Amino acid sequence: MRVLGVDPGLTRCGVGVVEGTPGAPLTLVHVGVIRSDADLPQAERLLKVEQGIEQVLNEFAPEAVAVERVFAQHNVSTVIGTAQAAGVAMVCAARRGLPVGLHTPSEAKAAITGSGRADKAQVTLMVTRLLRLATAPKPADAADALALAICHVWRGGAQARLAAAHRAAQARAGQTRGGRR
Amino acid sequence: MRVLGVDPGLTRCGVGVVEGTPGAPLTLVHVGVIRSDADLPQAERLLKVEQGIEQVLNEFAPEAVAVERVFAQHNVSTVIGTAQAAGVAMVCAARRGLPVGLHTPSEAKAAITGSGRADKAQVTLMVTRLLRLATAPKPADAADALALAICHVWRGGAQARLAAAHRAAQARAGQTRGGRR
Repeated sequence: MRVLGVDPGLTRCGVGVVEGTPGAPLTLVHVGVIRSDADLPQAERLLKVEQGIEQVLNEFAPEAVAVERVFAQHNVSTVIGTAQAAGVAMVCAARRGLPVGLHTPSEAKAAITGSGRADKAQVTLMVTRLLRLATAPKPADAADALALAICHVWRGGAQARLAAAHRAAQARAGQTRGGRR
Repeated sequence: MRVLGVDPGLTRCGVGVVEGTPGAPLTLVHVGVIRSDADLPQAERLLKVEQGIEQVLNEFAPEAVAVERVFAQHNVSTVIGTAQAAGVAMVCAARRGLPVGLHTPSEAKAAITGSGRADKAQVTLMVTRLLRLATAPKPADAADALALAICHVWRGGAQARLAAAHRAAQARAGQTRGGRR
């Protein structure tokens, strides 16, 4: 499963593409940051985010997109821009029919470090380790995007296994009912 | 000048197109509401907003887009979705090279009623009057979108006159300096 993780923002929007399945080693496909100048009008900045996301989708063809879930309680001065950048990434995915997963920062941290309150250094360390990189991924800003992608691979896997178990259970129940007829 | 006003939202996104110039009567071109089902995933809802905005832009070809400026202090339970819908409208405009104006709800209210704290009934009444409609615009939800469009026509006009006056003053100053050479 190839997943694009997006750490949304106007000044820096982290993008990371990871390939993997739960229980197997993960591979780094791409990591980068989409930047936009603070002097540009907000609409132009959001357009730059869209163009950057489109480029990554075109080039690396992920099967799913994981975006950070933005809360109103976030840093008040930047939350609107962050939410809008996240919305743009979500629309880019939806336009292509790609499934979108929203994960909170704590969910992503907990998935890869075991703690929802891990600091930036710990997240970067685990991203480096899990992707079997010789050095920390560069740019450093994009480690959160990779963490979101890894979180999605693992949670997606767990969700897929639950769904499969549920279908299997339903099928067994169906057979039992069938046998009683 | 033809302006599309967007009152952003996920459940209901108001769109209103107005034609006019400052000091001349205004004309209603189009009014509508883009709706999306609360049961849909957020990415799908934002895609519906994008499709609705694109349809209006294609059909009515406005020269500018006025979007409500969203603040983090807005209703906390809906602010993220509202900000994202606004962001999607802004990107749709920027993609076509259309100028985007952001106006706060108070600015729009003050522009058309004289008071930034006017209530919904007052805004609807003034929109109806200014657009010379026999009855209030329907759907009622879209009155705010029309108010934003009218605000933009008027503020845009004022800004354009200021810019023209500024250019004229600079030209006069240039002539004076030239005359002294």
